[in-house]
Amino acid sequence: MNKSDVVQLILGDRYLKQPQQNQATAYAPTNIALVKYWGKRQQDINLPVTSSLSISLGDKGANTTLSVNNKNQDSITLNNQAIDLFSNFSQRLSQYLNLFRKPNSTYFDINITTNIPIAAGLASSACGFAALAKVLNELYTWQLTSTELSILARLGSGSACRSLWDGFVEWQAGEKSDGMDSFGVPLDIEWPDFCVGLLIMQTQEKNISSREAMQRTIQTSSLYSLWPEKVNYDLSVLKQALQEKDFALLGKTAESNAMTMHALMLSAWPPISYALPQTVEAMQKIWQLRNTGLEVYFTQDAGPNLKLLFLKKESEAIKNYFPEIEIVQPF
Amino acid sequence: MNKSDVVQLILGDRYLKQPQQNQATAYAPTNIALVKYWGKRQQDINLPVTSSLSISLGDKGANTTLSVNNKNQDSITLNNQAIDLFSNFSQRLSQYLNLFRKPNSTYFDINITTNIPIAAGLASSACGFAALAKVLNELYTWQLTSTELSILARLGSGSACRSLWDGFVEWQAGEKSDGMDSFGVPLDIEWPDFCVGLLIMQTQEKNISSREAMQRTIQTSSLYSLWPEKVNYDLSVLKQALQEKDFALLGKTAESNAMTMHALMLSAWPPISYALPQTVEAMQKIWQLRNTGLEVYFTQDAGPNLKLLFLKKESEAIKNYFPEIEIVQPF
Repeated sequence: MNKSDVVQLILGDRYLKQPQQNQATAYAPTNIALVKYWGKRQQDINLPVTSSLSISLGDKGANTTLSVNNKNQDSITLNNQAIDLFSNFSQRLSQYLNLFRKPNSTYFDINITTNIPIAAGLASSACGFAALAKVLNELYTWQLTSTELSILARLGSGSACRSLWDGFVEWQAGEKSDGMDSFGVPLDIEWPDFCVGLLIMQTQEKNISSREAMQRTIQTSSLYSLWPEKVNYDLSVLKQALQEKDFALLGKTAESNAMTMHALMLSAWPPISYALPQTVEAMQKIWQLRNTGLEVYFTQDAGPNLKLLFLKKESEAIKNYFPEIEIVQPF
Repeated sequence: MNKSDVVQLILGDRYLKQPQQNQATAYAPTNIALVKYWGKRQQDINLPVTSSLSISLGDKGANTTLSVNNKNQDSITLNNQAIDLFSNFSQRLSQYLNLFRKPNSTYFDINITTNIPIAAGLASSACGFAALAKVLNELYTWQLTSTELSILARLGSGSACRSLWDGFVEWQAGEKSDGMDSFGVPLDIEWPDFCVGLLIMQTQEKNISSREAMQRTIQTSSLYSLWPEKVNYDLSVLKQALQEKDFALLGKTAESNAMTMHALMLSAWPPISYALPQTVEAMQKIWQLRNTGLEVYFTQDAGPNLKLLFLKKESEAIKNYFPEIEIVQPF
């Protein structure tokens, strides 16, 4: 089963038709996993070993416009800067678009604007591919459901399948080999007081992609085999915490899950560490603040930045201790 | 089974006799584990979950003089500074000495000089209790074997049982509930080119003792159950590396073992991290140097300092890249 097979399954007789519009635009929020996705059971169509659960970041995300052009190649701009077509970024994008167009038939001007740093563990590819799936749906007038779009977004980047919705979203791992049961499902939970604080230590590209880091972890970590059990436990506790609006339980579960994911990476060979010196400094500071009674937790993805988790009533204190923080209220 | 029971088992009719000398002195080297001891199967007499393997650091260690005094209390000096008798340090020492003397009978002037930082993950308690066991053996003329002294040293601090010998030493975990089969065994291996570089980031006391960190790891880490398997594998590979003088295999095995131990701590709750920002910086530097072909590995204990592992031929390069390093040649 490869990506094209999945696209055909979903599009049926709409597969490889011409776009019905000349231009379309769509937006998708980025999402931060509270229970992480770390490890694939199938590489090509991004089927995960475990389920995962995220919070979407509202107006932090990617806005993408696709316009049919009459040149013989795509052209890509990111935040109004032209991107080299031979860059990894462009190649990955064009290859994704190739899944939906006849060879040598249709080319696009792709215009992406994003208000989050690219490839710094802030899930830029998640919102990027979710926005792309949505904009293709407009351009080709496929009229797909969000669930179907979630599967298409997943083909671009696993965690993108969670960026089709606002709020808390569970990516259900599924069991099928074609991945038709592996998509995001929004949770019916509103939590207006819930805040995420972005603590950005670095906005450059990271030196090992999460794709590669995942693979190395699975192949070499002596501890990885316990990860699925840890995730299942954390998922059930996190859902309970969301139902009961038990913030301390949510914070503890999310932080413990993230630390365990990074623990797995450290135990890989060669060891993988996304921490910068400033990351360690910030963690120690958070732990100290928590010891003094401030209810703040954090999560960390495949990058050095931390995402602080706290309730609105702590916002002023958090801004005080971390003047450089950017606070997002997902609801 | 408690500490006194073990002491009685070993000393037999020499138990709680008076010292035969008024003063004695002994030295023990500190040791750095290449396969770590992390977790006890019995708390009181320091029985480990797994075996472990270390290298002793020659003239880096503790020199201890015990003199019988005729005051009504012990007095302790560390590097010529008097130590408060109510400090944890003094309490732990006096309680250890209580195992060997009748209540209210004998008091000592204890004079310790050490050339390694105390409680900074440089195994100061290892050499400290090994030296203490040796000096008691002199003072009381017990004429114990090194193996018996290793068991007595273990009662003070688990890893102390490896500090009775120079060179590579395996602490065999044993199976018995009285721990009479849990002691150090020196390996018959000389490796004159083997170097250890001490990269000291901090010499203050750490904020969580290794004793407490071990306990928390066992009780809360979802990954700990795989540690014994990891240790057994690393031990067999490390012994093979020592036999074949395969330095790359030794380095990789030791570093991977250390990183996995720290991974377990990160996955505990609350997470435990001994890393300082400088620790992360140094790790990244070592990994970069290794990528450029320099054969250098590291290990890290329950503290922020790193111990670099390399062969003599790399000494100049290492000094160049880490001007502050202290290089020890164990053979």
